[in-house]
Amino acid sequence: MEASAVLSAVISPRCGHLSPRCLRFLSLPLPIFKTLKNSPKSKPSLFTVRNCSSITAKPSSELRKKKGSNLILNSEQDEKLRVLRELFSKPGINIDAYIVPSQDAHQSEFIAECFMRRAYLSGFTGSAGTAVVTKDKAALWTDGRYFVQAEKQLSSSWILMRAGNPGVPTTSEWLNDVLSPGSRVGIDPLLFSSDAAEELKHDISTKDHELVYVYDLNLVDEIWKESRPKPPKKPMRVHELKYAGVEASSKLSSLRSQLVEAGSTAIVISMLDEIAWLLNVRGNDVPHSPVTYAYLVVEIDEAKLFVDYAKITPEVMEHLKKAGVELRPYELILTEIENLAARGASLWLDTSSVNAAIVNTFRSACDKRVGNLGIVKKNKTANGSSSQSGMAVGVYKPSPISLAKAVKNPTELEGMQNCHLRDAAALAEFWAWLEEEIDKHSILTEVDVSDKLLEFRARQTGFLDTSFDTISGSGANGAIIHYKPEPDTCSVVDAEKIFLLDSGAQYTDGTTDITRTVHFGEPTAREKECFTRVLQGHMALDQAVFPENTPGFVLDAFARSSLWKAGLDYRHGTGHGVGAALNVHEGPQSISFRFGNLTPLQKGMIVSNEPGYYEDHAFGIRIENLLFVKEVETPNRFGGVGYLGFEKLTFFPIQSKLIDISLMSATEIDWLNDYHSQVWEKVSPLLSGSAHQWLWNNTRPLVKQ
Amino acid sequence: MEASAVLSAVISPRCGHLSPRCLRFLSLPLPIFKTLKNSPKSKPSLFTVRNCSSITAKPSSELRKKKGSNLILNSEQDEKLRVLRELFSKPGINIDAYIVPSQDAHQSEFIAECFMRRAYLSGFTGSAGTAVVTKDKAALWTDGRYFVQAEKQLSSSWILMRAGNPGVPTTSEWLNDVLSPGSRVGIDPLLFSSDAAEELKHDISTKDHELVYVYDLNLVDEIWKESRPKPPKKPMRVHELKYAGVEASSKLSSLRSQLVEAGSTAIVISMLDEIAWLLNVRGNDVPHSPVTYAYLVVEIDEAKLFVDYAKITPEVMEHLKKAGVELRPYELILTEIENLAARGASLWLDTSSVNAAIVNTFRSACDKRVGNLGIVKKNKTANGSSSQSGMAVGVYKPSPISLAKAVKNPTELEGMQNCHLRDAAALAEFWAWLEEEIDKHSILTEVDVSDKLLEFRARQTGFLDTSFDTISGSGANGAIIHYKPEPDTCSVVDAEKIFLLDSGAQYTDGTTDITRTVHFGEPTAREKECFTRVLQGHMALDQAVFPENTPGFVLDAFARSSLWKAGLDYRHGTGHGVGAALNVHEGPQSISFRFGNLTPLQKGMIVSNEPGYYEDHAFGIRIENLLFVKEVETPNRFGGVGYLGFEKLTFFPIQSKLIDISLMSATEIDWLNDYHSQVWEKVSPLLSGSAHQWLWNNTRPLVKQ
Repeated sequence: MEASAVLSAVISPRCGHLSPRCLRFLSLPLPIFKTLKNSPKSKPSLFTVRNCSSITAKPSSELRKKKGSNLILNSEQDEKLRVLRELFSKPGINIDAYIVPSQDAHQSEFIAECFMRRAYLSGFTGSAGTAVVTKDKAALWTDGRYFVQAEKQLSSSWILMRAGNPGVPTTSEWLNDVLSPGSRVGIDPLLFSSDAAEELKHDISTKDHELVYVYDLNLVDEIWKESRPKPPKKPMRVHELKYAGVEASSKLSSLRSQLVEAGSTAIVISMLDEIAWLLNVRGNDVPHSPVTYAYLVVEIDEAKLFVDYAKITPEVMEHLKKAGVELRPYELILTEIENLAARGASLWLDTSSVNAAIVNTFRSACDKRVGNLGIVKKNKTANGSSSQSGMAVGVYKPSPISLAKAVKNPTELEGMQNCHLRDAAALAEFWAWLEEEIDKHSILTEVDVSDKLLEFRARQTGFLDTSFDTISGSGANGAIIHYKPEPDTCSVVDAEKIFLLDSGAQYTDGTTDITRTVHFGEPTAREKECFTRVLQGHMALDQAVFPENTPGFVLDAFARSSLWKAGLDYRHGTGHGVGAALNVHEGPQSISFRFGNLTPLQKGMIVSNEPGYYEDHAFGIRIENLLFVKEVETPNRFGGVGYLGFEKLTFFPIQSKLIDISLMSATEIDWLNDYHSQVWEKVSPLLSGSAHQWLWNNTRPLVKQ
Repeated sequence: MEASAVLSAVISPRCGHLSPRCLRFLSLPLPIFKTLKNSPKSKPSLFTVRNCSSITAKPSSELRKKKGSNLILNSEQDEKLRVLRELFSKPGINIDAYIVPSQDAHQSEFIAECFMRRAYLSGFTGSAGTAVVTKDKAALWTDGRYFVQAEKQLSSSWILMRAGNPGVPTTSEWLNDVLSPGSRVGIDPLLFSSDAAEELKHDISTKDHELVYVYDLNLVDEIWKESRPKPPKKPMRVHELKYAGVEASSKLSSLRSQLVEAGSTAIVISMLDEIAWLLNVRGNDVPHSPVTYAYLVVEIDEAKLFVDYAKITPEVMEHLKKAGVELRPYELILTEIENLAARGASLWLDTSSVNAAIVNTFRSACDKRVGNLGIVKKNKTANGSSSQSGMAVGVYKPSPISLAKAVKNPTELEGMQNCHLRDAAALAEFWAWLEEEIDKHSILTEVDVSDKLLEFRARQTGFLDTSFDTISGSGANGAIIHYKPEPDTCSVVDAEKIFLLDSGAQYTDGTTDITRTVHFGEPTAREKECFTRVLQGHMALDQAVFPENTPGFVLDAFARSSLWKAGLDYRHGTGHGVGAALNVHEGPQSISFRFGNLTPLQKGMIVSNEPGYYEDHAFGIRIENLLFVKEVETPNRFGGVGYLGFEKLTFFPIQSKLIDISLMSATEIDWLNDYHSQVWEKVSPLLSGSAHQWLWNNTRPLVKQ
């Protein structure tokens, strides 16, 4: 899966401060709002009417049938704007503009339908976008991936802001331009990370605008009313110790040691995958990510999970009790934050992920308490922590869970290895089927193919869901990096063109993400050269050895070097973190040309290795394996540090037909042959019949003439 | 020459802000004071008694003779401290501590002897160090290179601070520890860049200490009195258009356009190489760098050079007049700064290089003027500039000369190419001589060898000086990255050990810097493996192709990759900028694992390519060529940008004997053979006799069996 998630790394405050000079180096358009943990890639479209309370993997062809019923007319869009503007002047609100982002309250990459407010309000269903409505204007920002879609979906009442195009203002610049000085700009503070809200506040303050936190109601929900989908209520489940490797109580204990070390007494965790990982629980509230909507507050001697009780099975209840975790209603999180402040807690807040409502509530409650006690307010100290005890303070540091979760233990790695082999077996069955169908001249669309792949995967033990929307692109569609085929508009898989398939699955024991690019007919010399250079980059990164404390971006150029020699490149990162039976995109590490992310790669971390090349209107190439970081037994250890390298998780053939062997060195041919021999050894026992034969055919050694 | 200069890049304010996380990644000890333009590498030792008014290249063996006369006794050192402390309480001074750094007023890498105040005061003559004297203590900070030397040279009155060792405080931390709160810490504001002074001020303010700028006299000079060497008075010379390529008037005109664009009306330039480059003049005030002590103020319609008139020949006078440059006495620079403020100038100040005296004088004069006019003070705006005219303000931006100077024009490149061939001819004669001597079992010290090299170079047309102190290290000495052999203590060149020679020269048309590592006998398998891996890194960087806008650090890993695979590495950067007939170390670009320097490599920039490997107490390996950045004709230009690569300036054999051919790929062998064939073609016409034969022998193709 292409590494768009790593964009977040550049702009996260944890990465230090970036000068404008640094940003100039980025060749990709920046997102309109700085999504601080994960940049959404391919969220479910509103066209796919999903019942929020029963999300399961469904073939796209089935979803297609429901599309017509959801078509939103322009007049309906305009009516929504009218009602929204009426709310502006309601007592206690009194705003001149309202910003509706794509996010939920947890900075999730995939969100439940009931939180897709920007899509509901504007009619634009792309995964990334921000709607801003003033008393007489409405504007929607999205990036290059979605210009065409947004043009189609927005009514004439909306101005489309093509973010990244020359002269297009940011939301703040636009607000500063269209509002009279001293206006009030409203947001739902649950939907902005604290950092994003602070930045917005700063940016609009140049025109003396005030950022107004509208706490008690979300204005879009007010319009949506009864037609708003119900929040998801799918039961949570225990993520068994045989997959998790470490008891929740033990993880909580480590976390508490970190709290003590940082001089804090409590932490609030809002990232859904962090909660799932820490408590060894999984959920089913959103597509693709096995998580449950919740907040978690951990103190030194207690822990409270804020969650809809309907999701708690007796087994989960017992499990949480054993870990010393009590339950509280989801809605009471802000009340708890107030209580923490009142009790003088030193609260660890990762302002890049925790929403503005929580951070602001805590600060206000602290100010109130300080006022009551008659104490001089204590500011944040240089290292982000405070040593003054007995007084409510914030410890502003990145979440300690993020790194702990990223460094996999041996049990998690074993689960990842196992599920990758089953995934490979499903893929072999799929590709054997597909090649046979192509040989029979069957007419298959990109969506048909994607559905069939799901069918094969669903038969594997422990399969739960896809880990993201399958990217199935034939010919020119493969060149659209974030392509998502839609049943009504997708292409037929062309036997004479390159086909790119980027897909993954969630299993009980792990998460997969793999891209293969194939040609069913005869590739051109150019296609072969491009494919070979991408493969050379993939191999160079796979074989890299590097000292401890090396951030991923140092390795990024290895994956581009062969392409650069031909004047080629790709406009995305090379690797993102992947959760163990969790989110397919996770931090804090990444491998990217965006060098703001200084997180060193560590033993046990998982990264994708996915260089690519995209020729507009022609074809797309990407070769993606998942890798984990391991110690390498080097003959020396200069500097007294360990040296690290990668071990593959993905074992699946790379199509030899697309390789221009004349470009390959002997070492590179050895790498490929060795890899294919491992693929055969590991995956063939899981196969029979035509898939077994297919794997044999596709793992034969390459010989340079 | 090893790229220690690039360290400055990490900490320069122009590189954005670095988090502590970033600094942790640096494996090298940081300098005590943040030298913001160039980190000194090998400044002349006080043992080499140079007459300041007649610096020419002299063999070290000659300098050796004078050593005895300069030995400073401990009692003398203590007497200096006593007199210095007396000055503390002089009326108008009244300080509790005084800091004596290594710098001159221009942040020069090589400084005139009369400015070597720290060495005079403390007796410690290493190139890097800071002396701090309080009323009852004296401490000297230096880094790992100089611990042994400092131990020997400091009297018992001095505390040696081994910077970088665990638990050793910084100067500010120490001052905060030993002084009573609210003390006054004096500095000569000419000797600190404005940024360094501000940082110091901030760091000691935590104990309410005040940083006191002692303007009118340097306290060390007060002690030094008559024995202080006279300031250099060597004449300036015109750097002819046939070498410079562009008229000074044209460079001034471009600079003025940049001033206008930035909203400034004047700029003060204090970096000596920037002045030399801009005005097409050269000087002879310091060793190794062909520069003259001066300041330059450029306004929209005039330009003033602040310089000792004794250095101005009629020819230079005429040249400057033609470029519209007037002369002013060197000492009047601060008066001019006051005048600029009084006239309401908008002055461009690069606070990373301009000293605190200038910046502070300008600010005070502005405040005074604003006070007189009754205007509210204007602060620095977000982008460092100010658009408010008619009022004296500072435009705080990196010097525009730095980048203009770094991007060489075709004439400058031609001069660099020409002088490199003559330099190679001298080197061939030298190596032919040296190998013959070794064969004859002659006893030669590292200094003898270095002197002989100078002799050969001095015979070449246009030779002026060495471009830095030659690093000539046999066996274990080669593992000391900044090794400088001294006549009394250096080793004999051992025929059975690896010998590392890093040297360079200043010619009228260009500057050279080359390192070669050889073995006169039979290298061990380990030595060959290490050498081959260094060479592989050198070749990988040499052949890199990369898109425009790529900062140098992106390429650094290419030079380390082969070493990393064996668990090896080196603790210095891979490449630094080099001036054209100017400083051997220049910015703003660099190629380093220290990724704070975001300056993109641009067509026409010169960088060194010098990976290495150093085995403590055994041997050192470094292979260094100079390269210039050129456009590469790639078959594609993905992203609509140009692709860049390198062209070699250095043409000199790399010793084949040290190569383990079994580790080399066919492509790598081709690279070497192609390089050697070019070396032969370009350099052999300049040689005859044994040197000609030596070059032939050392450029024969390598054949893999």
